[in-house]
Amino acid sequence: MQKSEQTSRPPIVGRYTAEELALASRNSGMPLEALRYDVTPAGLHYRLIHFDIPAADEFTWRLRLDGLVERPLGLSLDQLRALPARTVRMTMECAGNGRGQMSPRYPSMPWMEEGVSTAEWTGVPLATLLERAGLKSTVRELVFHGVDRGLDRGIEHAFARSLAPAEAAADGVLVAWAMNGQPLLPQHGAPLRLVVPGWYGMASVKWLARIEAVSAPFEGVQQALSYHFRKVAGEKGAPCTRMRVNSLMAPPGILDFYARKRIAAAGRIEIRGRAWSGSGAVTGVSFASDGKWTDAELDASLGEHAWRGWRASWDAVPGEHELRCRATDATGATQPLEPVWDAAGFGNNSSQSVAVTVREA
Amino acid sequence: MQKSEQTSRPPIVGRYTAEELALASRNSGMPLEALRYDVTPAGLHYRLIHFDIPAADEFTWRLRLDGLVERPLGLSLDQLRALPARTVRMTMECAGNGRGQMSPRYPSMPWMEEGVSTAEWTGVPLATLLERAGLKSTVRELVFHGVDRGLDRGIEHAFARSLAPAEAAADGVLVAWAMNGQPLLPQHGAPLRLVVPGWYGMASVKWLARIEAVSAPFEGVQQALSYHFRKVAGEKGAPCTRMRVNSLMAPPGILDFYARKRIAAAGRIEIRGRAWSGSGAVTGVSFASDGKWTDAELDASLGEHAWRGWRASWDAVPGEHELRCRATDATGATQPLEPVWDAAGFGNNSSQSVAVTVREA
Repeated sequence: MQKSEQTSRPPIVGRYTAEELALASRNSGMPLEALRYDVTPAGLHYRLIHFDIPAADEFTWRLRLDGLVERPLGLSLDQLRALPARTVRMTMECAGNGRGQMSPRYPSMPWMEEGVSTAEWTGVPLATLLERAGLKSTVRELVFHGVDRGLDRGIEHAFARSLAPAEAAADGVLVAWAMNGQPLLPQHGAPLRLVVPGWYGMASVKWLARIEAVSAPFEGVQQALSYHFRKVAGEKGAPCTRMRVNSLMAPPGILDFYARKRIAAAGRIEIRGRAWSGSGAVTGVSFASDGKWTDAELDASLGEHAWRGWRASWDAVPGEHELRCRATDATGATQPLEPVWDAAGFGNNSSQSVAVTVREA
Repeated sequence: MQKSEQTSRPPIVGRYTAEELALASRNSGMPLEALRYDVTPAGLHYRLIHFDIPAADEFTWRLRLDGLVERPLGLSLDQLRALPARTVRMTMECAGNGRGQMSPRYPSMPWMEEGVSTAEWTGVPLATLLERAGLKSTVRELVFHGVDRGLDRGIEHAFARSLAPAEAAADGVLVAWAMNGQPLLPQHGAPLRLVVPGWYGMASVKWLARIEAVSAPFEGVQQALSYHFRKVAGEKGAPCTRMRVNSLMAPPGILDFYARKRIAAAGRIEIRGRAWSGSGAVTGVSFASDGKWTDAELDASLGEHAWRGWRASWDAVPGEHELRCRATDATGATQPLEPVWDAAGFGNNSSQSVAVTVREA
């Protein structure tokens, strides 16, 4: 483990590098107008893929569950599909969402705010598999191994993450083979993906091939080095776990293709958006035009693990305006108005700001 | 028509702007490992969307075919689906693919090379609809109107493009409602899209609502201002039409996440890729390691309008290497080794270059 490597990327100020552009072209955000869909359609769900998408054959794929277990398992897709299945509607956000708004910023995927989506995942509850295998009393973590392999921070590894047994057995955690009623797509982890409701996306390990029960904390690159909140590169920091409360609106009006600016006609405009938190139910959303905050109206719940729709009415008058939104969850946490510094740009849940030019109707 | 507006974006040198990053995050390329698929899976097909994805209701959608026709048509989705359908396997490339490699570069979507994909489109041949409507003898062009609306170059408009009647009636041109056997996805033009085999993607108008037969050349923004090859901004230029011959390989080895560099183990490596042209069949592909060119082997044809697989064998020895590929089509056209200058970065079909570090096996 080369911990010193974690400081090897100098922060970036100003325009975006070729590496950031390559990451943004290869990965994919959810266009904000897709906030209109309760469940994000195929191909619009955000994707963040560290290495190459593996060429996986679902007919020969096996999921192993081994390590410190009483009865090691090796299951084909057909065997997994024969177990009682469950479908969970779940909002997932990349831990790095909002990184691109920070300055200086960490050299990685420069998400602005589009790294969030909602899907309906179908699979076998992980708790079912853990019960079948029987965890030994010495088990401290379960390590989830994907087959996607590459280098990060100079270390070659396959993507892997761990969870404590209680987190792994939690309600809604699935080994999923379907997304929105269709077989998993290659870019979303086909043929098998772990999905962990409430957590940032890195916990939902794609191309899942092995679940390993271990007695010591997992020290893999993506667990011990990456995905930590740190004020200063190199410090121990705190692991990224559950999603912080966050919200977005679909920007109103029409778009200027290159300037990426919004233009709307004067009049009453209904603003709609979504709010979510991995820590507790969304209890309120505020909406502001030019710094004047009002309460937004919450739509009906879409389920415990899914974002919540909200709407607000905006009396748009000609001129330049700034719209913002801000959610609060059941823990009392609320979004900050400005990004909270993080050395690697994780967990930026600061209030969205949308500039709109209003013209005479 | 404000022709002067076309010069209003100063060219960019060096690092990428916030606007370019926003375009790259919102749009989406095909990761090059997806060259392994004959038909690009859902969600991996590239997308280039000028404005917001419209909220379309397939149940109320009507396609109008009017203007200079004997019998104007207004067809629902059900009526269109009741007509004899055809499926066309078709490679589509964005006219701006490769723009991001040019210097200086035009401020727009900064594609490196990933703006190409192949899909199977199903729909009614446009020729069928044109016959039913009966074009009057004065028709010079057919204008295809999408409902996606926004501003470009300071002009508010809905996306629209035109074709001459003979081009529109050509074999394989469809009004498509399905892609890869599934209903069109919102980002690919649901519920209806024109698809024009052989042409750059701008001809395949998404969210198609109206086909208008007209007697004069269409002067819309996306036809007369944008999508022209020009050496100097402001000159008349030549319209972008059919795809130039082009090819890509799937980079070998594994990836370094941030450096975006490839690392492979020494030994014999099979390099695989795809080649395509909108002007004639691909007749050959050459592959080079460190400037030494050899003939690649062509796979069987996937159809007249689809890319052609190719493979080459590379004896990888430790060190730093540059791999390239270069295709030739039946017209004798071959890819240039370096980008050919275009003021707006269109049609860059220069030979792909892939840097690979080979380590001892």
